[in-house]
Amino acid sequence: MFIIKEFELEGRLGVIKTKRGKVETPAFFPVIDPLKQLVSIKEIEEIGFDQIITNAYLSYKRFGEKLISEGIHNVLNFDKVIMTDSGAYQILEYGNIDASQETVMNFEKAIGSDIAVILDKPTGDVNKLDAEKSVEETLKNAYEAVKLKDDKTLWVLPIQGGRYLDLIKRSSEESAKLPFDIFAIGSPTVFLEKYSYKTIIDMIATAKNCLPPEKPVHLFGAGHPLIFPFAASLGIDAFDSASYALYARDNRYMTDYGTERLEDLDYFTCNCPVCSKYTPKELMEMDKKERERLLSMHNLYVIKRSINRTKQAIKEGRLWEFLVEISRYRPEAYEALRSLSKYIKQINKYNPRYKGNPRGLRFYNEENLWNPRIINYKTWILTKYLPDEKKVILRQIPKDTRYCMGEDGREVIYYTPYIGLIPYEICGVYPTIQFHYYDPIPIQVERDLINMVRVFIIKMKKLGYDIIVEASYNNYYSHDIGKEAERLKVKVNWK
Amino acid sequence: MFIIKEFELEGRLGVIKTKRGKVETPAFFPVIDPLKQLVSIKEIEEIGFDQIITNAYLSYKRFGEKLISEGIHNVLNFDKVIMTDSGAYQILEYGNIDASQETVMNFEKAIGSDIAVILDKPTGDVNKLDAEKSVEETLKNAYEAVKLKDDKTLWVLPIQGGRYLDLIKRSSEESAKLPFDIFAIGSPTVFLEKYSYKTIIDMIATAKNCLPPEKPVHLFGAGHPLIFPFAASLGIDAFDSASYALYARDNRYMTDYGTERLEDLDYFTCNCPVCSKYTPKELMEMDKKERERLLSMHNLYVIKRSINRTKQAIKEGRLWEFLVEISRYRPEAYEALRSLSKYIKQINKYNPRYKGNPRGLRFYNEENLWNPRIINYKTWILTKYLPDEKKVILRQIPKDTRYCMGEDGREVIYYTPYIGLIPYEICGVYPTIQFHYYDPIPIQVERDLINMVRVFIIKMKKLGYDIIVEASYNNYYSHDIGKEAERLKVKVNWK
Repeated sequence: MFIIKEFELEGRLGVIKTKRGKVETPAFFPVIDPLKQLVSIKEIEEIGFDQIITNAYLSYKRFGEKLISEGIHNVLNFDKVIMTDSGAYQILEYGNIDASQETVMNFEKAIGSDIAVILDKPTGDVNKLDAEKSVEETLKNAYEAVKLKDDKTLWVLPIQGGRYLDLIKRSSEESAKLPFDIFAIGSPTVFLEKYSYKTIIDMIATAKNCLPPEKPVHLFGAGHPLIFPFAASLGIDAFDSASYALYARDNRYMTDYGTERLEDLDYFTCNCPVCSKYTPKELMEMDKKERERLLSMHNLYVIKRSINRTKQAIKEGRLWEFLVEISRYRPEAYEALRSLSKYIKQINKYNPRYKGNPRGLRFYNEENLWNPRIINYKTWILTKYLPDEKKVILRQIPKDTRYCMGEDGREVIYYTPYIGLIPYEICGVYPTIQFHYYDPIPIQVERDLINMVRVFIIKMKKLGYDIIVEASYNNYYSHDIGKEAERLKVKVNWK
Repeated sequence: MFIIKEFELEGRLGVIKTKRGKVETPAFFPVIDPLKQLVSIKEIEEIGFDQIITNAYLSYKRFGEKLISEGIHNVLNFDKVIMTDSGAYQILEYGNIDASQETVMNFEKAIGSDIAVILDKPTGDVNKLDAEKSVEETLKNAYEAVKLKDDKTLWVLPIQGGRYLDLIKRSSEESAKLPFDIFAIGSPTVFLEKYSYKTIIDMIATAKNCLPPEKPVHLFGAGHPLIFPFAASLGIDAFDSASYALYARDNRYMTDYGTERLEDLDYFTCNCPVCSKYTPKELMEMDKKERERLLSMHNLYVIKRSINRTKQAIKEGRLWEFLVEISRYRPEAYEALRSLSKYIKQINKYNPRYKGNPRGLRFYNEENLWNPRIINYKTWILTKYLPDEKKVILRQIPKDTRYCMGEDGREVIYYTPYIGLIPYEICGVYPTIQFHYYDPIPIQVERDLINMVRVFIIKMKKLGYDIIVEASYNNYYSHDIGKEAERLKVKVNWK
């Protein structure tokens, strides 16, 4: 049902198999509005989405009994995966709507949803008491839903708790015990709109830490390209949102870093089919409906690109580097990266230590030091690694690592910024393979290197190893390492 | 003939008017290969290029006398701007070709080129003696060309010198005296291929410093999206390259940061019309010619996007911020940014001090401190600004700058990371308008702030001002400023 093809950080590439077809994850489900959809489902498919989500409640309002007699795939004329939301969000928006779990789930079964959300009680941005209520009520709903669900549909259980991490924890722990096919983190929309990515990161990490790793996890209402890679790095497998259409209604043009008002643009900064065909001015002069439709399409193309970049980065084992790059898109993204680094242990649980044939890593600043795979490697060097020989030499790495060489009777260990220490034998094994950085390195990165060398020397001395450090007067960090070694009373060969 | 509409850093938005039509700069001229062009000129126009460049020598080989009888616009079926290269590059590639300046220029006139390069002697990656020879010979060519040129065509004089900055200086100084319409920096292709952006930055800055600012400057052979914003920031107005086609021939897929081999991609990380329609696998399975054509088109879409992003950033007065963002695309780009910061004085010559209605600035790290406009502002504060009142209070800026307030009888000056000091009266005037950064700020940024406050206090004390510093125990940089003020024996109000 859910096949994981590739792990990277806490994220993964996978396939959700439904009765109708498969969803390649991480996946984005565009929200189809049964009442006022401007971009046709055919166009959405052409943009590259093989799955959509729509609202069971609004669909019924729009299409009535036809949905049951013909099935939702026929009514919408879409033969790929359709997910239906129970309409709980409408309950949140319009107050209580009278519908029982049984009515809702039977309806979703009857219309032939491939993936269906049970009726839940979304949290929204409320006080803690109300948030707690939504957690408990959703759990009650869940127990009832377990009895009502069939085997053909994939059933989705929402996790509640809003920004209250203890509530998310309780909601996730209890939900994890129940036999649902997919879990979904509910209602982060309020935080997404404010770009409070830090909050979202905490919410996701808390939930994921309790949920079974073999189940897909969906994030409700996330529709901005900047959040996908961050959420995916913590193991979010699916997203849905109507943002592409809602922004367009407001003349808002999605960019990698946020949105722009169409009237503020002289040039399109994107090369999607819409932006390649029109200028901002031409769009502004169009009929409102047509402009809205084209802007919606542009927004979907931008979303698609972000999903693809995320997938490619997972595939290449470069997801952290990708996050470092996009952390320059806005300060909130940088904060999100910082927040992620709080969850290193959780992230490294499934993060592969080595990945086959990765391209060269690129290092810029301390954010690269937080790369969980590199932290993992350094921890291994400092806690598990013991040199074969009792004589150890610490040497600055040559510019071209192909010139790394071993020596008879002595263990050669290279020192280098960002990675720290590399024993000769594993030069060339990821993550100690090819890497690029600019010179001089930032202060924090040099401090990190010197600190690692110090800790290693102290340990080696305690274990009775004979250590020589090679240092150079002509290189700032090599010089500082030499000085540090002298302070530790280790022999230094100055060059 | 060349109208500058907008300045930003040393770059500009402009319009080159030719006899046939206009070129909006910064502009990219796709190189049309008369012998083996796969993407049609019609398609190139549809991608969004209103100007092309082709080789006079190769065109003649392909089309013969027809070029003269019908004119190049009719033969190529393109009624927008056509630039012709004399074929000097072929001379560099294939050794000496027998053609006189007169033959070449008369041919370019006869076929109706809108912009024509005189016959020059390109430098390439040669030793200094040969480079010097190419400078002197090109200058000799130039003197001859002055006599031969007409008034209808825009004539382009190449600047030579390769990577030898003293030669570029001589070439530019002499060229600047001659009445050409456009100058072009020659043969940086060897450095572009190696991503030696630092070298290119030095070459451009040296040439631009000698060339008249009112003339457009072209950079030959630059065809990667990453170089455009850097070159444009130093005042390069036009580019040309065949890279889009050459890369495609090699199955190389352009990205923001470099190129990828098509076979290494599982997902397209771009959303141009080509990437939106096909998957990497589908392209791989195509007929070679068709794949090459589609890859060429993708590459052109990527180039177009970079040009547009550059233009929009110039328009918005955010070019430096854009460079900071893309400096994360590869370490060589970061080095280029560092190199740029060597030319602050030159850059600030035409860089507007203030720009109307800029959106909020985003700060990440010390690269933002190098923003020439901010350096300009800080220099002004430290050297020119004098408070109206003899009593001065230095106060931490409130989170929301709308709450900045003046005080009777005292000059309130706010301190804040990145910008430094902001007198109350100019709060809200660019660059002291809205800005965003994450907390805590990097060490270097805090040092910069404390240093600026120190220099300011010392100056104010010397001038007999009465200074009070407000500092807080609860904020790290405010605390450090308070401590610094105490060391300088200034009264500190601790909170």
